[in-house]
Formats: sequence, C-alpha cells, structure tokens
Amino acid sequence: MSTSNQATLLVSSLDRRGIVARLASFMHERGINIIQVDQSVDAEHGDFRMRMVIETEFGQTPGAQLEEELEAVARDEGLKIRVNLSQAKPKVAILCTKEPHCLQDLLQRHESGELNCTVCVVVSNHGQLASIADFFDIPFVHIPVTPDSKTASEHELKKVLEEHSVDLIVLARYMQILSADLVAEWTHRIINIHHSFLPAFAGASPYRQAHERGVKLIGATAHYVDAELDGGPIIAQDVIACSHRDSITDLARKGRDVERTTLARAVRWHTENRLMVQGDRVVVFG
Amino acid sequence: MSTSNQATLLVSSLDRRGIVARLASFMHERGINIIQVDQSVDAEHGDFRMRMVIETEFGQTPGAQLEEELEAVARDEGLKIRVNLSQAKPKVAILCTKEPHCLQDLLQRHESGELNCTVCVVVSNHGQLASIADFFDIPFVHIPVTPDSKTASEHELKKVLEEHSVDLIVLARYMQILSADLVAEWTHRIINIHHSFLPAFAGASPYRQAHERGVKLIGATAHYVDAELDGGPIIAQDVIACSHRDSITDLARKGRDVERTTLARAVRWHTENRLMVQGDRVVVFG
Amino acid sequence: MSTSNQATLLVSSLDRRGIVARLASFMHERGINIIQVDQSVDAEHGDFRMRMVIETEFGQTPGAQLEEELEAVARDEGLKIRVNLSQAKPKVAILCTKEPHCLQDLLQRHESGELNCTVCVVVSNHGQLASIADFFDIPFVHIPVTPDSKTASEHELKKVLEEHSVDLIVLARYMQILSADLVAEWTHRIINIHHSFLPAFAGASPYRQAHERGVKLIGATAHYVDAELDGGPIIAQDVIACSHRDSITDLARKGRDVERTTLARAVRWHTENRLMVQGDRVVVFG
Amino acid sequence: MSTSNQATLLVSSLDRRGIVARLASFMHERGINIIQVDQSVDAEHGDFRMRMVIETEFGQTPGAQLEEELEAVARDEGLKIRVNLSQAKPKVAILCTKEPHCLQDLLQRHESGELNCTVCVVVSNHGQLASIADFFDIPFVHIPVTPDSKTASEHELKKVLEEHSVDLIVLARYMQILSADLVAEWTHRIINIHHSFLPAFAGASPYRQAHERGVKLIGATAHYVDAELDGGPIIAQDVIACSHRDSITDLARKGRDVERTTLARAVRWHTENRLMVQGDRVVVFG
Repeated sequence: MSTSNQATLLVSSLDRRGIVARLASFMHERGINIIQVDQSVDAEHGDFRMRMVIETEFGQTPGAQLEEELEAVARDEGLKIRVNLSQAKPKVAILCTKEPHCLQDLLQRHESGELNCTVCVVVSNHGQLASIADFFDIPFVHIPVTPDSKTASEHELKKVLEEHSVDLIVLARYMQILSADLVAEWTHRIINIHHSFLPAFAGASPYRQAHERGVKLIGATAHYVDAELDGGPIIAQDVIACSHRDSITDLARKGRDVERTTLARAVRWHTENRLMVQGDRVVVFG
Repeated sequence: MSTSNQATLLVSSLDRRGIVARLASFMHERGINIIQVDQSVDAEHGDFRMRMVIETEFGQTPGAQLEEELEAVARDEGLKIRVNLSQAKPKVAILCTKEPHCLQDLLQRHESGELNCTVCVVVSNHGQLASIADFFDIPFVHIPVTPDSKTASEHELKKVLEEHSVDLIVLARYMQILSADLVAEWTHRIINIHHSFLPAFAGASPYRQAHERGVKLIGATAHYVDAELDGGPIIAQDVIACSHRDSITDLARKGRDVERTTLARAVRWHTENRLMVQGDRVVVFG
Repeated sequence: MSTSNQATLLVSSLDRRGIVARLASFMHERGINIIQVDQSVDAEHGDFRMRMVIETEFGQTPGAQLEEELEAVARDEGLKIRVNLSQAKPKVAILCTKEPHCLQDLLQRHESGELNCTVCVVVSNHGQLASIADFFDIPFVHIPVTPDSKTASEHELKKVLEEHSVDLIVLARYMQILSADLVAEWTHRIINIHHSFLPAFAGASPYRQAHERGVKLIGATAHYVDAELDGGPIIAQDVIACSHRDSITDLARKGRDVERTTLARAVRWHTENRLMVQGDRVVVFG
Repeated sequence: MSTSNQATLLVSSLDRRGIVARLASFMHERGINIIQVDQSVDAEHGDFRMRMVIETEFGQTPGAQLEEELEAVARDEGLKIRVNLSQAKPKVAILCTKEPHCLQDLLQRHESGELNCTVCVVVSNHGQLASIADFFDIPFVHIPVTPDSKTASEHELKKVLEEHSVDLIVLARYMQILSADLVAEWTHRIINIHHSFLPAFAGASPYRQAHERGVKLIGATAHYVDAELDGGPIIAQDVIACSHRDSITDLARKGRDVERTTLARAVRWHTENRLMVQGDRVVVFG
C-alpha cells in the first residue's frame, strides 16, 4: 500500500522513444526513488502507457513543485501525465437505492483500510440504507427522485458532490439513470456495477434474461459510465457457475457475491491509480 | 463410469406425484439395483426431470425387454422416458475445418477412455487435419464445400452419417453453417463450440469483438445447434481472464484452452446421458 | 428455498436394494409429493446416501407423526434417517474474536434471508465486535478467555448455547481452541473457517506460510471441527490467485474475500441439510 | 509475441536508486526502443527486479555487442542482467514416461507456435510415447531406467542433452527422480509438473491422498526442480472443483486438464523470459 511520501504517475502518449529514459532520469536527478514501473505499448494503435510509483524522502522536492516540473516535461515531450500524491486520498461518494450488499461491502472495506480513498458521503433516492451509513459514521443524504423531480434532484446531488469535493462517484446498485450532462462532466470518474457479464444482458433484469437464456455462468461488470447505457469502458468482470436448478432468486443471491467483489476491485484499482482509459478500453496496471 | 450391465434412464414429464415411487418400485420388483438418482422439479414451469442409473445383474431382465416394459409405464403415466443401455456407446462424428486443437483434444480423450462414445468418423471440408485422424486410427472423410456445392456436399455428409450409424455430430470448430433441414433432423444431437461467452459476441470473429469491447474475461460456449445461429440451448460455458496486454492473437491462444475443455465436457455429458433439454434450457445432471 | 410445508430427509445406509422404492412408496401412499432426490452410492465403500425433499399439503400427515413413522422404517430397513422439517430453522451461535469480516458477512446474509437458520447469539472472547451484533439486533455475549479461565469460560459458553437451544456453532475466525470434550459433544455441528487450502498450511499464520512458500493461489477451507487441529472433514474450499507482488498484508486482504464466501457457503449448505459426513469425507448434496 | 529484432532483459539487484534511469538512458543513447517495462521492489527483502523488452532496428547495435556493453553496466552497478535475444529460441528437451497428455499437449502447442522455444528431443524411460513424438517430427530417445542402471542411464541422458544443446528440461509426468548432481547442474532450468496443489500432497499418489482427505478442489503445480522432492520454487498453480462423487479415476481425469495447462503456462513463461527466482519464490513478469 502507499505510504505518505509516495506518488503515482500515469503517463500516456503516442509511442515515442525516450519517454522512460526521460522520466527515469528526471527522478534520478532529483534523488527520487522509483519503486515500481509498469509500462507497455499497444501493438495495434501504438499507444504508450506507463504507471510509475515513486518515493520521495521527507524534506525533498515537495509535491506541488514536483507536479509543476512534471507538467513542464509533459508539455515538452507531448505526454499526458497524471500525478497522484498518496497523501491526497481521493474522495468518494457512493450512490445507492435499496439493495444493501454493495454499500455494506464497500463501507466495510473502507473501514478496514482496504480502499485507498475517503468515502465522504452516501447518497440514496430512498431512505432504507441510512442505518448502514450511520453504522460506519458516513453522512447519508436522502435525495428522492421522481419523474418530475429528476432535474431538481440532480441539482441537489451536484451540490452534495461539490460540498464534499468528491473525486469519484460509485454507483452501488443505484437504480436511477444519470443525465447525459452529469455523465459528461464526470467522464471516467463514475463507476457502475452492472449485474451481468457485459455485453451480454445489458439493460433491465439481467438475471431474468440470464435465466431465460439458460446460461451456465452469471457475471458482473464494473465499468465507467458513459452516454450509452451499460456501454462504458469495462474495468473488471467476474463470473460464478450456475445450473438449471437455480431460480432467478438463486441467481440474484449468487450474483450479489460477484457484484460486490467486482465493484470493490474496480474502486480499489481506481483509487490506487491503476486505471487508464485508452480508446474504449481500460488499461489495468498490475 | 458405466460398466456393461448398467443403464441410464432420463425421465421428463409435467410434474405429478408418484413417478419416483412408480419407477423405483418397477426396478425393485425386477431385482434391479438403483445406483444413482438425480431428480428435481422446475419451480417455475413445474417440469419434472430425473436421471436414474440402474444396474442389472447378468441373466436378469435383458435390455430390450426392459425398454419395452418401461415404454408401457411411460404410456401409462404420461412420461417421456429415454433408456440408454451402457453396452450401446453412442457413435460420434466429428466435423472440423482447419484448426486442430478441438479435434486433437477430443480424439486424445477418446483414446484415453474419457468419453463414453465411439468416434467413428472425422469429416472435414479441408484436408489438413487428416493426419490427426490417421494418428488415432479414425476414418477421415474430406467433403469440400463451395457456395455451389453446398447441397451436394451435405448430401454426401448425410450418407457418411448413415453409413456409420452416427448418433451425435460434434462441430469441433467446423466453419460451415449446416442447412436448416439437417439441423431440424438432428435436433439436440449436434453440439457446437462457439468461441465466446454467449449471448455475448455471437456470429463471426468473437475474439475480435471481445478485443474491441475491452472485456476482461473471454469465454467459450458449447451448445446444441438449432435454427438460430449461435442461439441453441447452452450446455457448458467457461471463461479465462484476459487483459489490455492481450492482442487478438493472445485472446485466440487463451481461448483455445477454454474451447477444447468446454467442448469436451459437453460431449462427455451428452454421451453419459446427463443432458436433457427442457424449453430453451439444458438440464445437466451431476 | 424451503417453504413452510417442506421437509428434507437425509438417508444413509450400507448399500442395499429397494431403499429408494421403499421410501418413494412410503411418500406416495401418504400423498406426499417428492420435490427433489439426490441419491448415489459410494463405489469404493458401498455406502448409500440420499437427500430427499418432500412437500406435504396443509392438513396432511403432521411432522411429528411423519418422523415417527420414518423412524420405524429406518429401524426396519437398517437405515439412518435424519428428518428436518423446514418450519424448524436451525439455531446458530457465531463465535468470533476481533476480525469483523466473517461475522459481518454472515449477519448480512442472515438478514437478507440467504441462510436457512436463525442466528440467535454472537459470542466473543473480546468486546470489539459487539457493535456489529447490535446493528443486526443479535444478542452479543462477551466471554473473555485467559489461560487460567479456559474451563470456566467454556462452562459459560455451554450455558449460553443451552439457553439459546443452539443447533450449530460457527467459528467465524474465533481464535481459541475448543476443548476435546466440547468438540466431541458437538460432532459435525461446529463449522470452522481456516484461512488456507487445507491440508496445506494447517496451524498458525497460514498466509505467512503461503507467502514464504511462494504459492500462486491462496485458499480457504470450511470444515467440521474434530479432535485434530484443522483436521476435520472438509465442507467447502476456494482459492484466489496471488503473485510475487503480494505482501502478507495483500494475501490477508485477498484471503478475507475467500474466507467469508467459503464459510457462508458451508453454513448455508449445513442449514439447508445438504451435508452428510461419511467416513472422513463430507457429501454435499447439490 | 517476440519478433526477430527484440530482446528481453531480466535485471535483479539489491535495491538501489537509479537503475531504471541508467538502463533507460543506456537504451535511449543507442536509439533502442523500450517496448515494455515491468519493475518492482520486494518490500520485505528490498530486492529489485525488472523485465525490460527492447526493440532494435536492423543495422543497429548487434546483439553480441549489446550483451557485452550491458555486462559492463552490470559489473559497474552491481546488477545481475540476463539478456535474451529473441532470435535465439531456447532449446527444450521433454522427459516423459507413459502418460501421454502433457507430452501431446506441449507438442501441439509447440507446433501451433504458442511456445517460444524449439523442442528438440523427447526422452522417455519407456517406449510407449514414441509415436506421439514421431507424429510431431521430434526425435524420440528411449533410455530405460532400472535401479541398477540409474547412473548409466543418466549419463546417457546427459549426452543427449549436450548433443541437442538443451537449455531447458521439462518433466512432463516423468516418473523418475533425477540425481542431486544433475539437478544442481540444471538449477532453475528443470520444470516439473506435480499433480497436486503443493505443498499439499507432495510425494506419491497425490490424487489418492486428495481423495482420502476429501478435498473439494484438486490442483496441479509447475515448479523448478531442486534437491528437495516436490520442494522447488513454484511457478504456476491451478485447481479444479471436485466432489464426493468423484472416484480416484475421476480425480485423475479432471486433474489431467489442470496438469497440462499449468505445465504449458510455466514452459511458456520460462521461454518468454518472464521468470526470475528470488530466494525460494518465483517472480512472474506479466
């Protein structure tokens, strides 16, 4: 796990020579230790992508200065660099509706220190899950949504997100569709869990669809939300075996286990700065 | 595995009382031992399904008589009973094109005694895989297929199937679409392996589709062939993890392992009389 | 899931003919519907084992009478029959120490109705997890254990078990070893979760052992507790991939997910009467 | 996969600053493109490890010169660098006894181009599998081994290995124990497949042991061979579910699938220079 004087760099560019050398030398000159590098090139499109974890000693180059100097390198070399200082844990809002399993799971992991983030608020269009947020001492905001109130509700949601300086929205079985505007504003910063192995069974009632089709595995998919319903870049997927004996209720029960571990994995990866979207695909750094 | 004086019964009906009792008593009266029973009721549609493995001693009720008497029970009780005597191993034809992995795998398992069947012929629209059939001493028939020859070729195929008294057709990456007539004639007796996790990525080039969509697992599906392309009842499915680093070639390599084990599992289950189609779904008896 | 007028029979015996017929006829004569049968014979030892789910209509043979009549059959045929009426959900005590993940997971599943049991008490040798039990409205009893107090503490534990008429003890990461007497008294009614793929890494600090050995998968094992430490009959096992990058802390984090799902599966199976111990092995009815 | 002007570097050292910078600059100065870097530091022991894939253009620094210059860097910086030019595919000898599945699998993958190596000879202490080697046009050498002939047989084996300039020995279910001398001479260059999830069930008859213990998963382990039987560093492991219905024969059947995929994975990783042994553990570069 990251300790306080570490930072993570996510670097992308069109493939060109010397990027590793330039950045490695940059660090070396400043006495900064490189802890981990994961770099590769997309053979098909030629995209360069790299995740670098560095460690500065106390009293060395302060974070703000480092970021500034790296920005200069980025401009100079035509790179896209995202610097994340580990002191700054991302702030997360969890949106949910009535089903408790994903919310409970995320908050439990959060409390146990598994997730490199601060969950600062839980928002729901219903009141049922308030007690779970209470148990973990996280503020709970109830924003009802009706067909008529959609715009007003989302306005209220935006205020909550601002108030808490939220960096990432996690849809933990949130049964409302966000507006195109909100989604566009939060590109690659909203993670949803869909309870099927996408692209199979997009849309409503995936377990019913799976049951009717008689599949032998059911799955869950964590993905970034974009304009197309259940169509955003896929972060993580997992499956569990099922059989003809499983009713839709059984599928839902089995599925819950996959949903929560898959969503938690995606959130952990995002908050550890292991994810980068290239085209329609998500690069997951190991 | 089944030894020579065993038989398997597959029984389906609309749910009604007393079927287990009737059949169990039937066996008991004839001194036939029940080795295994797997029976359940579909909660949704009320369908009754049962697989029963029985063991007769030598000199007892001969198979033919047993079948006749069971048919009388079936008529009487409104059941559908399929009796399979283990002496009679199903006869299998494998159809393939150019890719060797599924063919090689099935023939190796066949030779090692894993599959409860006799592979009696390999048919291909190309000549490349003849040496594999030769190696395992299985007749190889080359039936070229061109857009013009489709009907004639299928006619030839039917003759081969008849000649060898084939019970089951296995499409081991056979790259031709069978005619609706042939498919209808062989309902639930043609098994295909599709190299995706159906219903995702039906149709051509599933690995390319999977790559473009950026999925994190790729899969394979063994299914009975019916009129709709890649739409028949699903028998077995499996998946394997993949990542952004995998090219389409890597996906194909990884996928081959899943294809061959999934297809082999489906063939083994079918030939051990573990499969029953109810509606669009396949019941797999454990 | 079982509804109120269902019952489950677990039947074992030395293999002999006619058991299925006898019991199926028994049910048929009383107008009792057979919903599910899973019966097999251990090829090696000849043991017969069967799970039968039956459904009686309201006003039919009452449970007590059914049990009595089945006992007569059992005596008559030399069978061992365990009848479980679904009205009578087993009563469960969960024992834990400081780690919350298994306790929280079980109580959440219990609340959501996944587990066919009533958790009536949580017992711990420490006080930390009281708030979790509180949240789910389950009584929490704190029984400290010191080297000197072991006998007295266990005495107190027995009183709690009696008071709540407990049928099953679940050790959800309970870090105390129960006395041989208690274990003997509760044969096949104590389920433990061990955080390794047994028999590998029995004993203390399995994740440390796994790390040192450099294994590529870590696992968890749910088993009945018997006299030998981590040696009882295995109910369920699962694994998760790990790599050289995983520290012991990472292994523990990954392992927690496997521990809780594996333990939950074992508890669900036990409380749905799907488990039967034959020799050192557990039969799991599907 | 590697094309002809690529090379792979495996670099290990005690952790010190500037290694990435030094090597990246080294490449940059010579106009060599870095395709992939996977670098990390063992938090516990401070070991640095890196795999770097580079690509030189035709007419650039030739391989021999590159190796020499890198050796100078290694001496200078106290590193251990292993350079593998992709033109030089490792030469592999497969040793087997009577079971065909692993041999057949490896040779099929070899033929399909999945493995970055040249299998140049198959050696067996029995004659049965000669036809498989023949089929794939690989020389087969039969070296019988009896208790008396052990030394002479191994002498003969060494001659065969020399003759074919073998780089890697793969034990594909080879049922003989190699001498301590041979093992020492081939440290981290002999891969064995053991048919259990090590360290569980080391030694003889692991499937029998697994059956007796009643485990719910069986596994396979590919590992480097060292002095201790089934005790060398673990490269790859996998498991498959089993149940009380599986006889030892069933376990062996299921296990064969895991054995062959696990062994193939280990061989592929080794021949793609993805493996590095640090202490008792194997680093697998992704």
